Amino acid sequence: MNNQQIQQYLTTNQNRARLLVSCPDQPGIVSAISTLLRDHGANIVESSQYTTHPVEGTFFLRIVFEANDMKAKENEIRDAITSVGEEFSMQWRLNFLHELKKTAIFASKDTTCLRELLYEWESGDLVTDISLVISNHETGRELVESFGIPFYYIPANKDIRKEVEAKQLELMEEYDIDLIVLARYMQILTPKFVATYPSSIINIHHSFLPAFVGASPHKRAYDRGVKLIGATSHYVTDDLDEGPIIEQDVIRVDHRNNVSDLKKKGRLIERSVLARGVKWHLEDRVIVHENKTIVF
Amino acid sequence: MNNQQIQQYLTTNQNRARLLVSCPDQPGIVSAISTLLRDHGANIVESSQYTTHPVEGTFFLRIVFEANDMKAKENEIRDAITSVGEEFSMQWRLNFLHELKKTAIFASKDTTCLRELLYEWESGDLVTDISLVISNHETGRELVESFGIPFYYIPANKDIRKEVEAKQLELMEEYDIDLIVLARYMQILTPKFVATYPSSIINIHHSFLPAFVGASPHKRAYDRGVKLIGATSHYVTDDLDEGPIIEQDVIRVDHRNNVSDLKKKGRLIERSVLARGVKWHLEDRVIVHENKTIVF
Amino acid sequence: MNNQQIQQYLTTNQNRARLLVSCPDQPGIVSAISTLLRDHGANIVESSQYTTHPVEGTFFLRIVFEANDMKAKENEIRDAITSVGEEFSMQWRLNFLHELKKTAIFASKDTTCLRELLYEWESGDLVTDISLVISNHETGRELVESFGIPFYYIPANKDIRKEVEAKQLELMEEYDIDLIVLARYMQILTPKFVATYPSSIINIHHSFLPAFVGASPHKRAYDRGVKLIGATSHYVTDDLDEGPIIEQDVIRVDHRNNVSDLKKKGRLIERSVLARGVKWHLEDRVIVHENKTIVF
Amino acid sequence: MNNQQIQQYLTTNQNRARLLVSCPDQPGIVSAISTLLRDHGANIVESSQYTTHPVEGTFFLRIVFEANDMKAKENEIRDAITSVGEEFSMQWRLNFLHELKKTAIFASKDTTCLRELLYEWESGDLVTDISLVISNHETGRELVESFGIPFYYIPANKDIRKEVEAKQLELMEEYDIDLIVLARYMQILTPKFVATYPSSIINIHHSFLPAFVGASPHKRAYDRGVKLIGATSHYVTDDLDEGPIIEQDVIRVDHRNNVSDLKKKGRLIERSVLARGVKWHLEDRVIVHENKTIVF
Repeated sequence: MNNQQIQQYLTTNQNRARLLVSCPDQPGIVSAISTLLRDHGANIVESSQYTTHPVEGTFFLRIVFEANDMKAKENEIRDAITSVGEEFSMQWRLNFLHELKKTAIFASKDTTCLRELLYEWESGDLVTDISLVISNHETGRELVESFGIPFYYIPANKDIRKEVEAKQLELMEEYDIDLIVLARYMQILTPKFVATYPSSIINIHHSFLPAFVGASPHKRAYDRGVKLIGATSHYVTDDLDEGPIIEQDVIRVDHRNNVSDLKKKGRLIERSVLARGVKWHLEDRVIVHENKTIVF
Repeated sequence: MNNQQIQQYLTTNQNRARLLVSCPDQPGIVSAISTLLRDHGANIVESSQYTTHPVEGTFFLRIVFEANDMKAKENEIRDAITSVGEEFSMQWRLNFLHELKKTAIFASKDTTCLRELLYEWESGDLVTDISLVISNHETGRELVESFGIPFYYIPANKDIRKEVEAKQLELMEEYDIDLIVLARYMQILTPKFVATYPSSIINIHHSFLPAFVGASPHKRAYDRGVKLIGATSHYVTDDLDEGPIIEQDVIRVDHRNNVSDLKKKGRLIERSVLARGVKWHLEDRVIVHENKTIVF
Repeated sequence: MNNQQIQQYLTTNQNRARLLVSCPDQPGIVSAISTLLRDHGANIVESSQYTTHPVEGTFFLRIVFEANDMKAKENEIRDAITSVGEEFSMQWRLNFLHELKKTAIFASKDTTCLRELLYEWESGDLVTDISLVISNHETGRELVESFGIPFYYIPANKDIRKEVEAKQLELMEEYDIDLIVLARYMQILTPKFVATYPSSIINIHHSFLPAFVGASPHKRAYDRGVKLIGATSHYVTDDLDEGPIIEQDVIRVDHRNNVSDLKKKGRLIERSVLARGVKWHLEDRVIVHENKTIVF
Repeated sequence: MNNQQIQQYLTTNQNRARLLVSCPDQPGIVSAISTLLRDHGANIVESSQYTTHPVEGTFFLRIVFEANDMKAKENEIRDAITSVGEEFSMQWRLNFLHELKKTAIFASKDTTCLRELLYEWESGDLVTDISLVISNHETGRELVESFGIPFYYIPANKDIRKEVEAKQLELMEEYDIDLIVLARYMQILTPKFVATYPSSIINIHHSFLPAFVGASPHKRAYDRGVKLIGATSHYVTDDLDEGPIIEQDVIRVDHRNNVSDLKKKGRLIERSVLARGVKWHLEDRVIVHENKTIVF
């Protein structure tokens, strides 16, 4: 998003906010929230709700609402939700759309996914401030800097993981990052790093998980003779490739395709599966619950 | 659905209802409805809302809710919604799940779609009372009667359309039909017939509309050399193949496929596109608005 | 296929044959075969060839050819191919289309796949003689017998596997079976049984292999929170769910779908993935090579 | 493709060629060609053949073959094919892979498709010499020149069509162009221009043809309320959007998507549908026959 796009977006959306809720189900939750919003002059623009099991299950809600002069009302609305939230034991997130989320992208040598994110962002599809790109290769520098985005080259391998992560975390703090996207970063993060950003690190794995967890999924897909290969975007947890899945897709392959062909075809879906996962996260559509995702 | 399935379904869902609403948008609608439901002891199980444009647009809502002893509360809930509905100039539909919708299927010689509907119904996926099947061919009789469903053979062609429809309408009334499914019926209905069942007649057209409106779509698809063929389920209006689209899908074809191959491949998607359209209608997921559908 | 369809098929195809070849690659193979065919007055109607690596790789070929008065030439063509086959160290299969393959279907309680096969067969899409159906449940009897196909009820469980298979093998021999289709049969076959029908037993597994090998794939897919579920048709080998994959497909699911929903959605692709696998086998499109398939 | 990629490609493929044939069907064609190739020491690596109807139909063939020291044999092989070609009244094309096809891209303001082509080319998926890009907007200059490709800005509108095309044709000649790709060029070409490059101009249309021929397909798709939107790559003929279709694909949309959303989603498939069409053309997979394509 160039400055003009951002200004236009902020103008259009300055009076808009999104609320994500999860709590034990009971009657009256929707009534309490929607009445609260009405009482503060807000209009619900879009909402989706889902309950795992009526009454004894878990209740999930996403609401987009608008109000004239939203900025003046932010604190009172937040306070009101806090109060209702306590009553119903809610976990909730409230995002005012004029506050752009700040995103860091971690990349490596293969820049396909990085490029896709940058272009989706440039065309206005990913509404965020891409604050910086960190890579353990110099490959993407020219591309990233052509968008006016800072590029940090931090060589990485497992022997210097600690030092590398220290530098990365420093940058995350300096730029006040909300979301980290691993765009084929190919390095494993330590539990300490992961714990700092719970449900806020999105990875792309180049297989249809849980098939081919770990290294060389295309080679193993080739060896097994599958007829479709996949890609999975998921939140990073301490268990490699075991985090909550946000999105998956597949593409058809056949006996004529060697491992290198699978890699090429795979890239076509990796980039879009990652972009969709990131987009949905930025639009506050995703709630993590028991290592799975609700995607509204 | 056999009697056992129906009993089980009714037991599970006797306290459940669905409300579909459309009205001019304004603040307070969700609050009014959800508070009303809470006040009658109802719990919202699932809800989706969409607004074409905030405030000045049109508001659409689908709510699924539960209440203990729903049957005893039906009238009071209906009255309360009537009252709120007037306040907000709503069009609304309220369905209590213990009241099964009654469906008539119109079929012809090609029984693929008819068969799919019967099997989806048998496996419990189409929750409805399939009250009768009318066909202008005897082909499907054995199949239909094996499910214990009455089969009416009414020969039809355009010269005797009036008499045919008179008989059909009589049966529709006798069986108190809510939904008519044209499962490759291949006869055009008169405006009079269509007007009797607005947004309640679902047809399957064997092309990706608006491509190949009218007769012989597979032949024309073959002549044009398309690489995908489609199917479309839509509500019937007076304009042939121009009614609101509910669902569409496509399947890949190539130069080796002749017209007969396209027909065979087409059947694979026609049956599922029709079954999905019917299923969504029966689940009260579809609202028609300005010749388009909102599918929640 | 009813008798009329079979007669029509045989009339149309009585002069047609298919040849499948695999051998070490070297120059001159296509020339030798095509010249042989020309010399016997045959015309090549369709052919596909694939070589893993030029010269040192493996050569695969599928040829469909026609000749006037084919029946009179069968022996001489077979002899000629035998001779060329020896020259090039070929493995080859030659099928004259007037000789219908004989198929046995093994089924169990869930008849979705069985039904699909019967309907694809009835509509002329599966060109074979479905000689019998064996099931360890009585559920499908009425359906199967309505097509005039013998139905054998053989109760089965792992304790009596040996006796069960003895009966089954006896029937396979009695009916001179070429292909066995496990249409959700749910019983494991012994190595002895499998060895009797190499690359001639097709199974459907209700997951996207190699994900969720073994029991309860839908339950495990639900627990993992995948966004797509799959189905795989493959040849049976001694390693459970590890045989050569013929075809796979997936269908989208989301957080609202419980295990029972996954089963319902899964059936929609299982039936078509199995039907495609069987169809391709019957059309002599599949060659097994190193636990993978070439599908022409 | 950078120089290193080109060198590697040429080294790997210097002994490889592709032959495309169409002619009236008759026995002996495959034998004649394959024997000819064997006699010149060539090995067939891949081949596909298709006949519209046996004997009286049209025969189509694609063969990829290799020979040691191919360059020295080019003329003799070409002569031999010419001779066989006359015997069988063939139309044929023979391409030696060391001769890279020369491609011109025509672009306009929306650079999505242009960018995709450049990246597919950079990653080695489009094997061609992209000799120049012509655009009626300056938008893509920086992007194109960053790949070291000449960029020509030629303003265009229908009033100056003649002069514009004169300049374009001059450049086509200067660069000796084999293939022209219209990457959302949005200008209509004159019959004269089209006649100069028969079956050698590929266009991307942003709809599922033949639905929404002409201008503003996304607006019209929105108005019709379709549930899928499409994209079509096709050869340009004098009839707007009526040329032979090479490839098509669709993407799902729903009631929440406005025209601008359709445009964004549409771009995701336009770029890949165009890239696949171009790739298949460059790999000599496409034969045009009676306004349709055979894609091997």
